[in-house]
Amino acid sequence: MSCIIDPLRISDEATLAAIARDEQIAVGKLAAGVRAGEIVVFGRADGPVRPLGIGAGLRTKINANLGTSPDFPDVQEELRKLEAAVTMGADTVMDLSTGGDLDAVRRAMREQCPVTLGTVPIYQAAVEAQERFSSTDKMTADHIFEVIERQAQDGIDFMTLHCAVTHGSVAALDSSPRVGGIVSRGGSMLANWMAANHQENPLYEQYDRLLEILAKYGVAASLGDGLRPGAVADASDLGQIAEMRVQGELVLAAREAGVQVFVEGPGHMPLDQIVGIVLLHKQLGHNAPLYVLGPLVTDVAPGYDHITAAIGGTLCAAAGADYLCYVTPAEHIGLPDERDVIEGVVASRIAAHAADVVKGVPGAAEWDDKMSAARRHLDWERMAELALDPGTVRTRRNERGTLDAKACSMCGKFCSIKIDLARPAAAGTKD
Amino acid sequence: MSCIIDPLRISDEATLAAIARDEQIAVGKLAAGVRAGEIVVFGRADGPVRPLGIGAGLRTKINANLGTSPDFPDVQEELRKLEAAVTMGADTVMDLSTGGDLDAVRRAMREQCPVTLGTVPIYQAAVEAQERFSSTDKMTADHIFEVIERQAQDGIDFMTLHCAVTHGSVAALDSSPRVGGIVSRGGSMLANWMAANHQENPLYEQYDRLLEILAKYGVAASLGDGLRPGAVADASDLGQIAEMRVQGELVLAAREAGVQVFVEGPGHMPLDQIVGIVLLHKQLGHNAPLYVLGPLVTDVAPGYDHITAAIGGTLCAAAGADYLCYVTPAEHIGLPDERDVIEGVVASRIAAHAADVVKGVPGAAEWDDKMSAARRHLDWERMAELALDPGTVRTRRNERGTLDAKACSMCGKFCSIKIDLARPAAAGTKD
Repeated sequence: MSCIIDPLRISDEATLAAIARDEQIAVGKLAAGVRAGEIVVFGRADGPVRPLGIGAGLRTKINANLGTSPDFPDVQEELRKLEAAVTMGADTVMDLSTGGDLDAVRRAMREQCPVTLGTVPIYQAAVEAQERFSSTDKMTADHIFEVIERQAQDGIDFMTLHCAVTHGSVAALDSSPRVGGIVSRGGSMLANWMAANHQENPLYEQYDRLLEILAKYGVAASLGDGLRPGAVADASDLGQIAEMRVQGELVLAAREAGVQVFVEGPGHMPLDQIVGIVLLHKQLGHNAPLYVLGPLVTDVAPGYDHITAAIGGTLCAAAGADYLCYVTPAEHIGLPDERDVIEGVVASRIAAHAADVVKGVPGAAEWDDKMSAARRHLDWERMAELALDPGTVRTRRNERGTLDAKACSMCGKFCSIKIDLARPAAAGTKD
Repeated sequence: MSCIIDPLRISDEATLAAIARDEQIAVGKLAAGVRAGEIVVFGRADGPVRPLGIGAGLRTKINANLGTSPDFPDVQEELRKLEAAVTMGADTVMDLSTGGDLDAVRRAMREQCPVTLGTVPIYQAAVEAQERFSSTDKMTADHIFEVIERQAQDGIDFMTLHCAVTHGSVAALDSSPRVGGIVSRGGSMLANWMAANHQENPLYEQYDRLLEILAKYGVAASLGDGLRPGAVADASDLGQIAEMRVQGELVLAAREAGVQVFVEGPGHMPLDQIVGIVLLHKQLGHNAPLYVLGPLVTDVAPGYDHITAAIGGTLCAAAGADYLCYVTPAEHIGLPDERDVIEGVVASRIAAHAADVVKGVPGAAEWDDKMSAARRHLDWERMAELALDPGTVRTRRNERGTLDAKACSMCGKFCSIKIDLARPAAAGTKD
């Protein structure tokens, strides 16, 4: 396939070297991945945004969605959540704000965000149409493109663009009734706009115009999954598959225009469809990096959807997905608070890492081995240091102060490790 | 294979009927499963312990481990945790106490526990040997059997018995050095005792004597996995496989003696070994029900091991495991508190249910469909009612009170469902 993503036009040598070093891979391999469109890169070695690669052969990355809502427009709360997300290890952040002064919120987040930052411009276009005309159906194509360019000028790294919500994919959706309908905000806004205005999706119809803006500002396209299933029962249906096919066409066109591109999917999914849908996404998407939400493997656990998403996310990433969007315990209930953000980031990092161990990502299994060795030596400070969330380990161990500093309060003197270490013919250990 | 488990000797018609009704299967199918040793049953329709079946074709069950420790010997705290575990939906509970008056704790738990209750008698034998002789190596075989009979007399439903920790399986373990050694408390106690006393494991050497006690009191045997890996790096090693082979022999002998039996496994496991190890457990274990811990798919997340275990547990159950032991956020840190118990039960229930959806367990997918329909109708009370943890949904929604009672505080008036429902050509919904 033709492809003109030139690594040295979208990045630079120092940045590529920094990413390759961080990933423990050869810089030539990284550059080849970028050139093939199988890896996207962000940030600059000499800039305020940390260098980052997402894609084939790299560590699975995770994203934290943040942003104000009409009910909670406070930018300060979002900035606190931003700091928490980055501290806990979010590789990227998205600003999904729909409440308050959206330009001001985005600029404040860009100012304070040291990692790759994404947005969903259709939200701002819809909010502004709602404010001006009391209806999101009153958006115009020109207004949508103006918002995209406004956000690009602020130095946004990537944008979710629901270009594949077309008359064709919505007709496919409508031909096969769903339990859950359309659950993507951007997808529902565009499908509704298209129906109300009897027009094709401008992000599809004027895709060249879109690519021109993205190329001009060096913004990557994240092809949104506006028709993703929001119910396990709707997984892999005609609407979802139709949208995936359109995403694939758009991947090729973006690469032709020199725009970095990746694909979003697949929403709620029962366990046994995950591997198949990931492989289909990779196949139809011409091996573009796959950015997944969850997927949630059951609908019955609101309040704990960071867990349902971690289960699906692990399987997705192990099957080849490159980038997991976190889901917080507040999903399906309300706007996440700071604690939700932390829980969401940690759960996603667990999913990403458990997959990386079996994907053979450099350094992944070694981390587990170091932790296991620290456990075998009952070295509690080292265990905390190596933990994905050191603070929680230290706090919890202090709360449950134990009489035997070498053991823990679960087993005390009946600690299996202490007993096994005392075994006369004890097994050798590897370290 | 020969097998003499007579459903009407270990249970009764009313109990079998109650279990079959609860599982939405034919009572003949249930009885056939019991007869084949592929299902175990507990409780009585007319007794204080709820009827329960575990095994092939049934809903995946979950267990909550409770019990005092030397540092936290308070029975009242354990009784509070027992109530929380049962309220949140634990199908069974195990009393793993090692602190305080163990007989009194166990009897109090049996008295107040409305569900199947299991124990690990070797803990009490070891604690008593420690108290009397200051060494768990001073246990005698007679003392171990006396403890088993004492616990059986109290009406315990099943016991974890590490009969397969033999000279042979420990030699296999020692032949292949581990990162993590032996991490099962019972396994380490027995292996150490065997080495110190130059004797075979009495639970293996005098297995007939053990079966006689179990048969007399109608107690089921849960064949412990004393050599399970406690580090992802140690998964599927020689020690683990050797123990699985011995478990298999012991399954057949238990069935011959009319004792219900199931098998425990497999500990920490990287994602890509889970399906294989479950199938091997079923194969070597002559299709006895499989009771799994976790398995934990990474070692690096202490403080969040309910999540690492839920990921592994889902895969295990989908591959055929029948019964998941919960893991709490306190795992690898200390004794769980009441909040940990709740988090552990919920995470395990998510894993069990996500697997049941794809195992085709009657009623499982229907539950998800009902939730998805409630979401489509923005029926918040119904969503809470259907949630795995209704209390948390109600509390959290109230905390994040929203200005639009039909939507939630994440999207407010930009709710995708509201927008999609307003779409002129909106997709039909299935309900």
